[in-house]
Amino acid sequence: MTDQEWKIDRYSGIPLHKQIEDFIKRKIIHGEWTVGTKLPSQRALAARFQVNRSTVVEAMGELYAQGLVEGKTGGGTKVCNNTWSLLSAYASLDWNSYVKKGSYHPNFSIIQKINREEFNEEIIRLGTGELSKDLLPVSKMESVIKKMSFSKVALGYEEPKGNIILRQTVSKHLERYDIQASPSNILIVSGALQALQLVSFGLLKKGSIVLAESPSYLHSIKFFQSGGTQVIGVPMDKDGVKTSLLRQYKQQLSTDLLYTIPSFHNPTGITMSEARRKELQKLCREEQLPMIEDDVYRDLWLDDPPPPPLKSKDKEGNILYVGSLSKTASPGLRVGWIIGPEPVIERLADIKMQTDYGTSALSQSIAAEWLSEGYYDEHLKVIRSALKRRREKALQLLQTYFGGSAHWTIPAGGFYIWITFPKEIRVHELFEKALKRNVLINPGNIYDPAASSCIRFSYAYSSMQDLEKGIKVLAEIMEELGGSR
Amino acid sequence: MTDQEWKIDRYSGIPLHKQIEDFIKRKIIHGEWTVGTKLPSQRALAARFQVNRSTVVEAMGELYAQGLVEGKTGGGTKVCNNTWSLLSAYASLDWNSYVKKGSYHPNFSIIQKINREEFNEEIIRLGTGELSKDLLPVSKMESVIKKMSFSKVALGYEEPKGNIILRQTVSKHLERYDIQASPSNILIVSGALQALQLVSFGLLKKGSIVLAESPSYLHSIKFFQSGGTQVIGVPMDKDGVKTSLLRQYKQQLSTDLLYTIPSFHNPTGITMSEARRKELQKLCREEQLPMIEDDVYRDLWLDDPPPPPLKSKDKEGNILYVGSLSKTASPGLRVGWIIGPEPVIERLADIKMQTDYGTSALSQSIAAEWLSEGYYDEHLKVIRSALKRRREKALQLLQTYFGGSAHWTIPAGGFYIWITFPKEIRVHELFEKALKRNVLINPGNIYDPAASSCIRFSYAYSSMQDLEKGIKVLAEIMEELGGSR
Repeated sequence: MTDQEWKIDRYSGIPLHKQIEDFIKRKIIHGEWTVGTKLPSQRALAARFQVNRSTVVEAMGELYAQGLVEGKTGGGTKVCNNTWSLLSAYASLDWNSYVKKGSYHPNFSIIQKINREEFNEEIIRLGTGELSKDLLPVSKMESVIKKMSFSKVALGYEEPKGNIILRQTVSKHLERYDIQASPSNILIVSGALQALQLVSFGLLKKGSIVLAESPSYLHSIKFFQSGGTQVIGVPMDKDGVKTSLLRQYKQQLSTDLLYTIPSFHNPTGITMSEARRKELQKLCREEQLPMIEDDVYRDLWLDDPPPPPLKSKDKEGNILYVGSLSKTASPGLRVGWIIGPEPVIERLADIKMQTDYGTSALSQSIAAEWLSEGYYDEHLKVIRSALKRRREKALQLLQTYFGGSAHWTIPAGGFYIWITFPKEIRVHELFEKALKRNVLINPGNIYDPAASSCIRFSYAYSSMQDLEKGIKVLAEIMEELGGSR
Repeated sequence: MTDQEWKIDRYSGIPLHKQIEDFIKRKIIHGEWTVGTKLPSQRALAARFQVNRSTVVEAMGELYAQGLVEGKTGGGTKVCNNTWSLLSAYASLDWNSYVKKGSYHPNFSIIQKINREEFNEEIIRLGTGELSKDLLPVSKMESVIKKMSFSKVALGYEEPKGNIILRQTVSKHLERYDIQASPSNILIVSGALQALQLVSFGLLKKGSIVLAESPSYLHSIKFFQSGGTQVIGVPMDKDGVKTSLLRQYKQQLSTDLLYTIPSFHNPTGITMSEARRKELQKLCREEQLPMIEDDVYRDLWLDDPPPPPLKSKDKEGNILYVGSLSKTASPGLRVGWIIGPEPVIERLADIKMQTDYGTSALSQSIAAEWLSEGYYDEHLKVIRSALKRRREKALQLLQTYFGGSAHWTIPAGGFYIWITFPKEIRVHELFEKALKRNVLINPGNIYDPAASSCIRFSYAYSSMQDLEKGIKVLAEIMEELGGSR
């Protein structure tokens, strides 16, 4: 809620409290903080401006006196007026009522908090599902871009399904996984998340039921619920989702879709065994259960390649297959794809056109180069060896600090380790206490409401030193909370 | 519905009908054309493969005989089986029922058709709201990119509201229009359309009413309706939306929002006069009617700059202001912004994170360079003089070919002329007949259901020669249809 640019000027001769008062007045006067806007707490303001709390108290006192803000007991301080509305006698709009009105559910407040805190430079991020900045192919990407010839296409709008050269490239790329898809069966999306959103808008109606692994990344996103779809979790074991249970769920509930991440699952790191894949495929055929196969981590295997994608055996067109460059090259490109039967792809493409008129054409051109010119495989090698080292280090650290108390999955690839702490540990407490010590974790209950003693740990993002520091902080907090080893 | 890559091989020795049969079989076998998929018409297939219709008939005969397709009278030919489902005795999924189920409305079929036909190279596009490819700043953009230093940020995820450097740049950029907005009041979006989608999801609930000019671009997009919002048109005159009527609408209907394009309106080209702007602003204040000001065409003035944005006089924070680089630089970048009070911007940013995790970081970095390094203004000069020439030419041509019959608006900037033909001309007929002659128009009833004798004409996209050719074709068709001069 604060303007990141503005700083107190300690040499201006204007008293600090006056500078703060004026800053807040400007926000109110320009309509940036409208009537009803809740101000940050005095503590937060003091930290923001790097002043004593008494300075903030003084500034606020002035604003109260001028009738610009009001404080309700317990409810914090709110803007209650602005000079123009005082002058014009027209009350200002209460946008806050609009903000509450929209049909779209807000993100979990904890995810909103994570989204914000992630850009705090001092934070150690133990759950972030991204490659470390050191592993982003900056110089390779730069050379791709600087070598590219700028066709005019890259600046204009693209076809509804996406740049044809990229779709041809993806089609060819998929052959390595034994997936046959022609360019007309491929829709380019702005990351895998958008593919899921399009499915939610385009193929599911209010009251639909989607099954997913429990825990699952899918539980952490809200637009299925916003559209009136229910997401129901099906338990997993070390070989993936339990197909016997899945069949019961399907038979007892009128299920529309299964969402699965068979390889290097988010958030557990589990890879579905070949036998389980066969069972799942058989089940889906017999039960007429269509599937979304989210396979964005496939190429991040660290020991051996995972079994072939479910999609490679899908002759009936039951599976929508999702891939992306975000996990292996650059999340900033925002390029992914979804593969499926033509009527489905055309429907999704139409919705995408309504949504954003297509993905950045520039990103698409770069992605095509990246996939076709060997950069993809070259960079994968770099990532794999780095992730391997990181995984070893993380597993060692967990053993050292949590060996006697917690237990965890051992992933064969991807980014994630699913850690289960003793029951005494409540993950929301752990989250808050860790955040106070500048360590950010992803609580398990984002991915499964019942997983209140688990976290998703990622060894991909933070530096080795920070991983160690962060884990040490967690261990200390655990001791405090009584869940020590 | 066809695979753009595949071509008949006339030298292979395999009969053409056999090649077509095999092609279609492959589509069915790989699950790309699932059971229930409607095949293109025989005529379309013949055109697609560049063969005689009898060749297609022969191929289809085989597929019928093998039980793979079936034809319902009048309903076209559909895939009714596939070899695997024959073998496995499991019926294949009917994805088509899913496609019909989603809560999201499909685009108008005519817009879907336009979206597809636009990528047909032979088509002359008379309605396209984009700069001609010649006017895209290819070499300038290339030099921006090649000079850029690739910070690591450009490859990672960005903050929820967007790249901070871009937001600071936009904040500075807006000062030239007398708009005060701090970076925390700016959300970067993937084009202006996405801003509208976020508003629809985030601020409006089922049953909301949005007013817009009639005609309006807003009527051509479907997600407001998909979310259960009603869009109601308020008539315009040469000075913009009629405020007297607007007040009545607002008082009689419980209206949530007004959407307006005050400068170089899409699709009419009308610019709201200064007096009308004042009236509108007063009305909105008095009636507590919040507004979206879509100002993406502002800098494309050809005679004089338009009056200042409504937002520049908005001290109450009643207005959400939308801008974009798509109309002045590159639609392919997919970069726009929305400005408003902080609670609103934070709500929209949260939904954006749920939707696509942010706009292409690369596009954002490029946009920041483009806006801050003088490229923006330099390129505007180029565009303005070209558009000015194009506008003169278009007005001349209209006078020559439609002088006695139709009438039209004369825009002071932007891309659009709104042409009203005599009542006898039904625009859907005009559309179909023109398309047969490779001329694509944007029928008026996309923008106002009652405007069935109007079109949105754009002088921005096609070459001068094509503009002339296209207008001539329209004139000839009009003569046929009995609406001649």
